Amino acid sequence: MQLTLHADYSLRILIHLAAHPDRLVDAGELAQAYGVSRHHLVKVGSKLAHLGYVEAVRGRNGGLRLKKEPGLIVVGAVVRRVEPDFDIAECFDRGRNTCPIAPACGFKGALAEARDAFLRVLDSYTLADLARRRATLEGLWWSPTREGANSAKGVKSGRTKGARRKASEGS
Amino acid sequence: MQLTLHADYSLRILIHLAAHPDRLVDAGELAQAYGVSRHHLVKVGSKLAHLGYVEAVRGRNGGLRLKKEPGLIVVGAVVRRVEPDFDIAECFDRGRNTCPIAPACGFKGALAEARDAFLRVLDSYTLADLARRRATLEGLWWSPTREGANSAKGVKSGRTKGARRKASEGS
Repeated sequence: MQLTLHADYSLRILIHLAAHPDRLVDAGELAQAYGVSRHHLVKVGSKLAHLGYVEAVRGRNGGLRLKKEPGLIVVGAVVRRVEPDFDIAECFDRGRNTCPIAPACGFKGALAEARDAFLRVLDSYTLADLARRRATLEGLWWSPTREGANSAKGVKSGRTKGARRKASEGS
Repeated sequence: MQLTLHADYSLRILIHLAAHPDRLVDAGELAQAYGVSRHHLVKVGSKLAHLGYVEAVRGRNGGLRLKKEPGLIVVGAVVRRVEPDFDIAECFDRGRNTCPIAPACGFKGALAEARDAFLRVLDSYTLADLARRRATLEGLWWSPTREGANSAKGVKSGRTKGARRKASEGS
């Protein structure tokens, strides 16, 4: 049982923006920070702008910034809107369902109650909670500047993700 | 966010067995009852036998039956074991994770708490709860006998799923 990558990337973008409230962040920086496709992040960023969570400033020095304070952005509300659906099983979607016992089966009701409990927990968090460890986060994002500084110190900039993870866990 | 079909089919089999405690149910009957691939259900049934929820009796008149009373089978425990994983986002699996901020990001903790709330709800249900409306369920499963009876009355046995759904909702 997993969230889609779209939802995952939405939160990654929002967390990055929450940690950089004083400036615009462009798709290239986000792609570099997370080591994922710029194209994918542009699509996710557009959706976040459409939903009113971020403001997209066009142009050479453009980028994204949050439209609200992180403390006012409820994680459960975001997840409900960026996850394509919460049809935990086939029977949640009448158009797709093929299970004949849906009208009398107790599993559907139990799953709906479980899904609601899942979302209720996320409703108790704001974006500010997710980005609370800002100083530590800052040291974990891939940064062109830091990569350059590391290279100057003789550290290979093309280090593997495994090595990166090990380094961050050890800090 | 969805359970896998494997988990969905596991519960479908258990519910059918819970509603037919007095006899063995073979894969052909289950496939007919739910209108899904016999091959797939045989695989799911084997897993349920391996996990100790059902007993598989081999031979010409063989089939499956529950190994415990439905009231003793906790839905949350089943779902934990038949769903391949509850890695709600990539960062739950160190081997697969590519997100560099996992060590300091608050989203992972919030998602873990939400997942636990989801499973806690399912822990409050037993298989007996899911199959409580046994008489109604009995009228919803596709049955070779009923199909035959319907054919004799001039009802097409190859009726569509939509028609089937409509009929069951109207009852």
